[in-house]
Amino acid sequence: MSDKTSKIQDPGVGVQYDHETKRIINSNGSFNVRRKGTANFVRDAYHWLISIRWFPFVIVVGSVILSTNIIYAFLYMACGLEDISGVIVSDSMGDNFTQALFFSVQTFTTVGYGAMAPESNVIGIIASIEAFNGLLLSAFSTGILYGRFSRPLSKIIFSKNAIITLFKDTNKKSLQFRIINKRANTLLNLRASVFISIQEPITTSEGKEIHKRNFFDLSLERSKIMFMPLSWTLVHMIDEQSPLYGITQEEMIKRHAEVLITLKVYDETFGQDTYTYHSYYATDFLEGKRFIRNFQVDDEGDIILNVNDVHNIEDQPNYQK
Amino acid sequence: MSDKTSKIQDPGVGVQYDHETKRIINSNGSFNVRRKGTANFVRDAYHWLISIRWFPFVIVVGSVILSTNIIYAFLYMACGLEDISGVIVSDSMGDNFTQALFFSVQTFTTVGYGAMAPESNVIGIIASIEAFNGLLLSAFSTGILYGRFSRPLSKIIFSKNAIITLFKDTNKKSLQFRIINKRANTLLNLRASVFISIQEPITTSEGKEIHKRNFFDLSLERSKIMFMPLSWTLVHMIDEQSPLYGITQEEMIKRHAEVLITLKVYDETFGQDTYTYHSYYATDFLEGKRFIRNFQVDDEGDIILNVNDVHNIEDQPNYQK
Amino acid sequence: MSDKTSKIQDPGVGVQYDHETKRIINSNGSFNVRRKGTANFVRDAYHWLISIRWFPFVIVVGSVILSTNIIYAFLYMACGLEDISGVIVSDSMGDNFTQALFFSVQTFTTVGYGAMAPESNVIGIIASIEAFNGLLLSAFSTGILYGRFSRPLSKIIFSKNAIITLFKDTNKKSLQFRIINKRANTLLNLRASVFISIQEPITTSEGKEIHKRNFFDLSLERSKIMFMPLSWTLVHMIDEQSPLYGITQEEMIKRHAEVLITLKVYDETFGQDTYTYHSYYATDFLEGKRFIRNFQVDDEGDIILNVNDVHNIEDQPNYQK
Amino acid sequence: MSDKTSKIQDPGVGVQYDHETKRIINSNGSFNVRRKGTANFVRDAYHWLISIRWFPFVIVVGSVILSTNIIYAFLYMACGLEDISGVIVSDSMGDNFTQALFFSVQTFTTVGYGAMAPESNVIGIIASIEAFNGLLLSAFSTGILYGRFSRPLSKIIFSKNAIITLFKDTNKKSLQFRIINKRANTLLNLRASVFISIQEPITTSEGKEIHKRNFFDLSLERSKIMFMPLSWTLVHMIDEQSPLYGITQEEMIKRHAEVLITLKVYDETFGQDTYTYHSYYATDFLEGKRFIRNFQVDDEGDIILNVNDVHNIEDQPNYQK
Repeated sequence: MSDKTSKIQDPGVGVQYDHETKRIINSNGSFNVRRKGTANFVRDAYHWLISIRWFPFVIVVGSVILSTNIIYAFLYMACGLEDISGVIVSDSMGDNFTQALFFSVQTFTTVGYGAMAPESNVIGIIASIEAFNGLLLSAFSTGILYGRFSRPLSKIIFSKNAIITLFKDTNKKSLQFRIINKRANTLLNLRASVFISIQEPITTSEGKEIHKRNFFDLSLERSKIMFMPLSWTLVHMIDEQSPLYGITQEEMIKRHAEVLITLKVYDETFGQDTYTYHSYYATDFLEGKRFIRNFQVDDEGDIILNVNDVHNIEDQPNYQK
Repeated sequence: MSDKTSKIQDPGVGVQYDHETKRIINSNGSFNVRRKGTANFVRDAYHWLISIRWFPFVIVVGSVILSTNIIYAFLYMACGLEDISGVIVSDSMGDNFTQALFFSVQTFTTVGYGAMAPESNVIGIIASIEAFNGLLLSAFSTGILYGRFSRPLSKIIFSKNAIITLFKDTNKKSLQFRIINKRANTLLNLRASVFISIQEPITTSEGKEIHKRNFFDLSLERSKIMFMPLSWTLVHMIDEQSPLYGITQEEMIKRHAEVLITLKVYDETFGQDTYTYHSYYATDFLEGKRFIRNFQVDDEGDIILNVNDVHNIEDQPNYQK
Repeated sequence: MSDKTSKIQDPGVGVQYDHETKRIINSNGSFNVRRKGTANFVRDAYHWLISIRWFPFVIVVGSVILSTNIIYAFLYMACGLEDISGVIVSDSMGDNFTQALFFSVQTFTTVGYGAMAPESNVIGIIASIEAFNGLLLSAFSTGILYGRFSRPLSKIIFSKNAIITLFKDTNKKSLQFRIINKRANTLLNLRASVFISIQEPITTSEGKEIHKRNFFDLSLERSKIMFMPLSWTLVHMIDEQSPLYGITQEEMIKRHAEVLITLKVYDETFGQDTYTYHSYYATDFLEGKRFIRNFQVDDEGDIILNVNDVHNIEDQPNYQK
Repeated sequence: MSDKTSKIQDPGVGVQYDHETKRIINSNGSFNVRRKGTANFVRDAYHWLISIRWFPFVIVVGSVILSTNIIYAFLYMACGLEDISGVIVSDSMGDNFTQALFFSVQTFTTVGYGAMAPESNVIGIIASIEAFNGLLLSAFSTGILYGRFSRPLSKIIFSKNAIITLFKDTNKKSLQFRIINKRANTLLNLRASVFISIQEPITTSEGKEIHKRNFFDLSLERSKIMFMPLSWTLVHMIDEQSPLYGITQEEMIKRHAEVLITLKVYDETFGQDTYTYHSYYATDFLEGKRFIRNFQVDDEGDIILNVNDVHNIEDQPNYQK
C-alpha cells in the first residue's frame, strides 16, 4: 500500500500523532476532536438549541420556561404575597405557591388579568422585570424556532455499511455505499469526493515512534448526478490503481482505515449548496454483499420509494474473497 | 435514435424499470416519486405551510387557531365555569360555551382584560398552559410568515407547449419553448440545460424484459442570458446532430419522450442562485406553430410586457411536416 | 461603428422593436419595462414594504395600524358601546369615538387593562377577532422589519456622470466612471462587466423599418479588485478596438447609446454575492473632465474618505476634442 | 526589492498618497479608513447592534428599554397621575414616579393588569402610543436577536505573531502564521490568499514627493485544505522568488511592510462561503521562533485541542539570522 503515492489535497485533519488515534469522523458526522478554551455561551446555546431534535428541544425549552416562572413565584413569596391584590394568603405553603405561580405566569405571558396585581414597590419591580423577561424569551424563542426551520442542512442517510461487491455483471470488485435523501425536498447537483485515511507507524530520524496518516483518493465511477429523487449508489472500482487493491479487511482494521466522504448538494429548500460528510471505518465494511433495489414501479407506472430500505443488502451469489 | 450516443451526465432518476414508468417530472415541477418511511412531522408541517398558496394557508392557520381556542373552551366548561370570575353560569350550553370561548381567546391572545379571571387551581393551570400555547403559536406564526416571504424560489412560467417550428427566416426545424418571470423582480445570469429521456424496452441476458431510459443532451442555440426583463425563447435546432432528428411525434409518445429542463437563475431578491426544473412530455409538443411576440413598444418608447401572453402561439405559414 | 462585430453574450433585453425605445435601465437601477398580468398581492406587498425607504415605510405601517384600530372603533360604536363595561356613553360622538378607540387599541395591542371589557357576545366576537388581528400584524411587522434589515442588497453609488478623459499622463482618451460603497461595511471581490447598446434603424426584407439594438463589449483596463474600502474608478480605453472610437457624443445621443454596467460584489454583511446594475445614457457623458480625488491622508497617516465626493469632477487642462 | 515585479491583482486600497499612511487593515480586521457623508441611521444602528458583543448589547438594549419606560413615566406625571385609576397621588415625587413607572411598564409590556388604567383622554393617548411602541420594540428586538445569531460570520483566530522560522527539518527560511476556528462548528474548503504591501517614497515628474504602495503575492506552500477541525499553519517559503528574500525586519518596518491575508471559508452553520481578512504589520513579525503543537492525543486516542494555544511559540534551536 505504501507504494501508492496518489496523495490528495490535504484534508486538514493532521498527519502525525504520538499515539494511535481513533476514527476521524464519528458515525454521527462530527469530527472526533475535543475542544478547550474560548467559547461564546449565548451563541453556543443558540446553535445547540437549533441542532438538537424536537423532543429534547421541547423538554429543554419547557423546563427553562417552567423553572423561570417557578423562580419568580418563590421571589414573590419571599417578598410577601400580601402585597399582591387578590391573593388570599393561607397557612398552606402549597396554596401560597400555587397562587404565586399563577401570578408569575400571568405576568410572564403578559396575560395580566388583573385579578391579581402588584400592590407594593418590591412586587412591582419584580413583576416589571418578569414581564420584560417574558418578552425577551418570546423574542428568543421566535428566533430559535425560525433558526431550526431555516437551518441550511440537508439530511442525507448513508447506508449502514459500505460493501465490497462485484460491479454489475462483471467479476471486478468494487467498494459501494448508497445514499438517500431523508426529506421529501429535491436535491440537485450532487457532487461527491471520497478518500481514505490509513495509519502507519513510522520511526523518526530521532528514533521516536510516531503514527502517520496517509491519505489517498478513492476515484468514483461517477462522482456527480443532477437530481436525486431516488437513491444514489456510489462506486469505487478496486482495480490496480486503487489503494484498496489486494488489501484484506483485517489489515484495514489494523491500519485504522477510514473512508471519508464529502458530499456537496444544492438544496432547493434553502437555495444553497450544503455539505454533508460521513465516514466508514474499516469495521463497517461488508464483503460479498450487494444492495437490494429500494424502489418499486407499481402497475400504474408510479415509482414507490422506501427511504428505510437504503440499508438493505443481500448475499452476492458469485462473490469470492 | 439508438445510434445517437451522446449520453449526458446522469440525471439521477434511475435507468432500468420492470414496468413502463410515467413522466419523470410532473407538470407542477415535482418529481413523480412516492416516498415511504422516515419523516419529520414538525419540519414537514413547516415546509408544507410555507409552500402552499395564501388562501389555503389562511384557512389552515385560522382553523388551527380557532379549534385550539374551542378545545380550551370545552376544557374550561368541563372543569367548571363557576370558577371563572365574571362568568354567569346559565342553563343554556350555548351561552356557557360563548363565555368560555371568550375567556379562552382573552387568555390565548394574552389580552387578559380580567373581567373574567381564573379562581380555581384547575382553571388557573389550564389558563397558564393556554397562555404559553398562545405565545408559542405566535412565535411559530412569525417564523412561518417570514419563511413564506423569504423562501428562495424564483417563479418562472414556462409556455404551456413546446413547439416544433422553423427557426427565424430559415427552413430549419427547431424545438422551442418560452419562459417568463412571473414576478416583477429582476432575474440575472440565467443558464439553461436541457435533455431528453426516451424509454426503450430491452431484453436482459436472462431473458427478462425491462424498460430502459436513455438520456440525450439537447444543445441550445443560446444557453444563457444576462438579464430577463422580458421573456426568453429557448431554441434547440433539430439538425442531424439532434436526437429528435427524423422522429415523428407519435414515436416520441410511444417512447415516453420527455424533455427535462433545469434552469439556474440568480434572483436579486434573495441574492442567491435558484434552480427551476420543468418537463415537456411528448404530448405537450405542437408542430407547425410559432410564438407571438408578448411585448409591445408604445408611442412613447415604453415597453409593455404581458406576462400571460407567454403561452400565445399561432400557425406558422410555411411549415411542412 | 457597424463594422465593430465584437458581439457579446445576449443581455436578454430584446433586439428588434417597432419603435425607437427609451433607455433600457432607468437611473434608479430598474429595467424600463411595464408588466401586466399575473401578480401575487401579499408577496408583492411584502417586497414593496421591504424595499421602500424608512420614512414612507413608517408612514405606511403607521397608517395601516391606525386605520385598522379606527375601523374596529367604529364597529364597536355601531354594535353598542353600552356593552363595553367602563365606557360612559355620552351624547358627544367625539367622546364616544375616543373611548371606542381606546378600547380598540387596548384590545389590538393585547394590553387589555380590563377597565373596559366586552359585556355582550357581539362585542366579544369583534374584540376576539381584533386581538388575533393584532397578533397577526405583530408577526407580520416582525417579518417585514427583519426582511428590511437582512435584504441582500449592496448600495453602490455611481458617479453622476461618465466622463471622457485622458488616461493618467498619456494623451489617450478613455471613458471613466467611479463607484463607492454607500455603506460602511466591507465589499470584497468586485467584478465589473460593461457593454454598450446602440440602436440602429434597419429595413427588413419585407420593407418594414424596425429598430435594432446592437450590443458591444466595453473592455476594462481593470475589471476586478479585491476590496473597496475607498472608491474605484473604472476605465475603458477608447482605442481603435473600442466601439466608441471616433464617435461624437451627438451621434451617440442620436443612436440612443447606453452604457450598461453589471457589478458583482461579495458583501460581507450577507455573506453573499450581490449584483448591482446601472446605466449611463449618452446624455450622461461629459467630455474633457477628470475626477477629483475623493479621499485625503491627514498628518497622522489616517485616510479620510468623503462618500459624496464620488461625483466631483473638474476640467482637464490638456484635453482636446 | 524593487526588481521583484510579480505585481498582483489590485487589492483596491489605493496606490499613491501624499503622506505616509498607517496600516491598511487594523488588527481587529477593519479597514483603516474614516468615512464621511451619506449614512442610513436605522440600518447602521441595526448593523451595529448585531455586530457588538453580548455584554454591551445587553447594556445598550436594556438602557434603551429602561429609558423609554422612564420617559413615558415622566409624561404620565406631567399629564396628571390622578387620571390613572388605582394610583394614589402623594406628596412624594419618588412615590409618584414609582407608580407612574409601574403603569408605564405594564403598558409597554402589554401586561396591563388593569389595577392601574387610564381615565383621561390624554393619558389614554399616551398609553396607546406606548403600547404600540412596546410592540414595535419587541418586533425590532426579535429581528436583532435573530440577526445576531444568523449573521454569516466565521470566527477565525490568527496567531498573534507571524514568525520567520526554518521550514520543517530543512534550513530554509519561511514566514508562517497559524489560524484556528474559535467556534465549535466545522469549517470546510478553506482557501487563503496572501500578499504584501510595501511603501516606497517616489518623486513624480513634477518633482512632488509621494508615497507609493507596491503589492506582491506571497505564494503559499499549501493554499487550501478541506476541513479545519484542528488548526492550520500557513507557510510562505522565503526563497529567491519571494519578495521577502534578503530583507531585514528593520527595513520592513521602515517600508511599512504589511502582510494582507484573505481567507475564504465554507461555514457549515450558514451554508455559505464567508471571508475573513487579517493583516500582520512588520512589527508583528518574530524571527527564530517556531509554533508549539496545540493539540494532544490522550491514551484513549482522543485528540484534545486547546484553542488558546494557537499563539504559543518557542525559540527555534538552530535558527540563524
